[in-house]
Amino acid sequence: MRVLVTGANGFIGRAVIARLRTDGAEVHALGRRALAADGVTAHTADLLEPNAAATLLARLRPSHLVHLAWTTTPGRYWDDPVNHDWVTASLALLRDFAAAGGRHAFFAGSCAEYDWQDGRLDEATTPLRPRTRYGRCKAALSLLAGDLAAAQGLTLAWGRIHFPYGPGEHPERLVPQLARKLLAGEPAATGPAAVARDFIHVDDLAAAVALLLRQGHHGALDLCSGRSTEVGELARRIAALLGREDLLQLGALPARPGDPLRLDATPRTLQSFGWAPRVGLDAGLRQCVDTWRERALVETAA
Amino acid sequence: MRVLVTGANGFIGRAVIARLRTDGAEVHALGRRALAADGVTAHTADLLEPNAAATLLARLRPSHLVHLAWTTTPGRYWDDPVNHDWVTASLALLRDFAAAGGRHAFFAGSCAEYDWQDGRLDEATTPLRPRTRYGRCKAALSLLAGDLAAAQGLTLAWGRIHFPYGPGEHPERLVPQLARKLLAGEPAATGPAAVARDFIHVDDLAAAVALLLRQGHHGALDLCSGRSTEVGELARRIAALLGREDLLQLGALPARPGDPLRLDATPRTLQSFGWAPRVGLDAGLRQCVDTWRERALVETAA
Repeated sequence: MRVLVTGANGFIGRAVIARLRTDGAEVHALGRRALAADGVTAHTADLLEPNAAATLLARLRPSHLVHLAWTTTPGRYWDDPVNHDWVTASLALLRDFAAAGGRHAFFAGSCAEYDWQDGRLDEATTPLRPRTRYGRCKAALSLLAGDLAAAQGLTLAWGRIHFPYGPGEHPERLVPQLARKLLAGEPAATGPAAVARDFIHVDDLAAAVALLLRQGHHGALDLCSGRSTEVGELARRIAALLGREDLLQLGALPARPGDPLRLDATPRTLQSFGWAPRVGLDAGLRQCVDTWRERALVETAA
Repeated sequence: MRVLVTGANGFIGRAVIARLRTDGAEVHALGRRALAADGVTAHTADLLEPNAAATLLARLRPSHLVHLAWTTTPGRYWDDPVNHDWVTASLALLRDFAAAGGRHAFFAGSCAEYDWQDGRLDEATTPLRPRTRYGRCKAALSLLAGDLAAAQGLTLAWGRIHFPYGPGEHPERLVPQLARKLLAGEPAATGPAAVARDFIHVDDLAAAVALLLRQGHHGALDLCSGRSTEVGELARRIAALLGREDLLQLGALPARPGDPLRLDATPRTLQSFGWAPRVGLDAGLRQCVDTWRERALVETAA
């Protein structure tokens, strides 16, 4: 398996690359900056430039493609106009991959494509009814890319990713934000404590992506753990790991307007392939906390 | 109201242009061929060419846009790869319209964007789950164009058109096919007689488009009559108008695989604006039959 991974420097990209390496794949990493990773061939390109990857794909002729690159800046990506450019760029990438003889692709979708009204998401039945620009662009791409792939004889696994966490997350995301505040001895505020989301550890997510590539799965499916955790519970566990429950301010931040209380889901297709999450929440959060503690120590020492 | 209409030579385009003229609009018709219509300014362009309409839009600066152009060849358009090019071309058109100071647009969607499983379509609740390339491309465009329009401060009425009929239809569509066979004294076969669809007369459709432009409606809605008719009933009425019930072969053709028996719908948004269909089925079919009878006479004489 010769696989090209876009968004290689990203949080999920690095975990997927590590997993594919472990599985023995020949991994080519594509990013705006070159990825320095053992045994991985780095390539640089800005996929938003016209014909960004056509030459590289024609030369490499990868059998597999994992497309994770997208705009993901916390707080910005929900409404960023560049979401539309990523639709165009992703379709061009898929066409170029097909033209270069590619066979199997994984594209990152999002649970934000779904109607969130019910509080329960089901990959087989929940309608697409995105409320954000990010969700609309991902949903539109799922329809267009799925159709194009099928027409070209490729398989395309469209993974609707729920709430990933793990080492390497952007510092502004939920888990790092809490861990960093608590490590700094500052009050750590959360939104409503009863808000429940399906958090999936990035290594479990990476294992799912590798499995879907091997299976040559075609179609959309949920990438989630199958178990939701309340934000209050998540925050309490992080605080307990750091012995700073005293600093928690659960529910101090307002809910995002229109956000549902729960978003429960079951990874049915993944389960049918024998996949199950392997990283428990406590072990996963401990990893995160340890990473941020080390970084804090390094920053203090510097 | 200065309005540019794409797909001006099409079945729906000609009806919409006639209606807009009656309403007193300044109408500019865009097609691959120049439209010859009284009081209408004709422009020619192939919208699938890059920057096809940018210069025209910048010069005309229309306040309103009706975008009907798409691939519509009967039997071909469901799976034609060019559907993807129409997504790209339609987004470019919308951007150019916005850049030229446009305010209100109508884009033609389709009931083929919906999940057809239930047999009942509801603009507020039925999920998007298109089964065809045509439906997938229209659904993707509805998400992308709706988002772009809102971001640019334009209104975009996305009309999911059900089963239009009327004078000027392509000869291969259902009503013309039956009328032509019966006029020629040949057996006229249909699919299953109990298949029911919401047929909307093209003049009622045109009135709805004009109304939505005037209202500056933003969002997706159904364009249908609110009353379904069984194919057997439709065929019997056409045959009765021609006195050739003897030639009908109801149910002689197979059902299209996976096609639902009924597709019922209600034009709730249109009704909320005071719209109601004005052309009864018998009067509408009589128009069609008369048109095809005249054409048959002309062809025989020629």
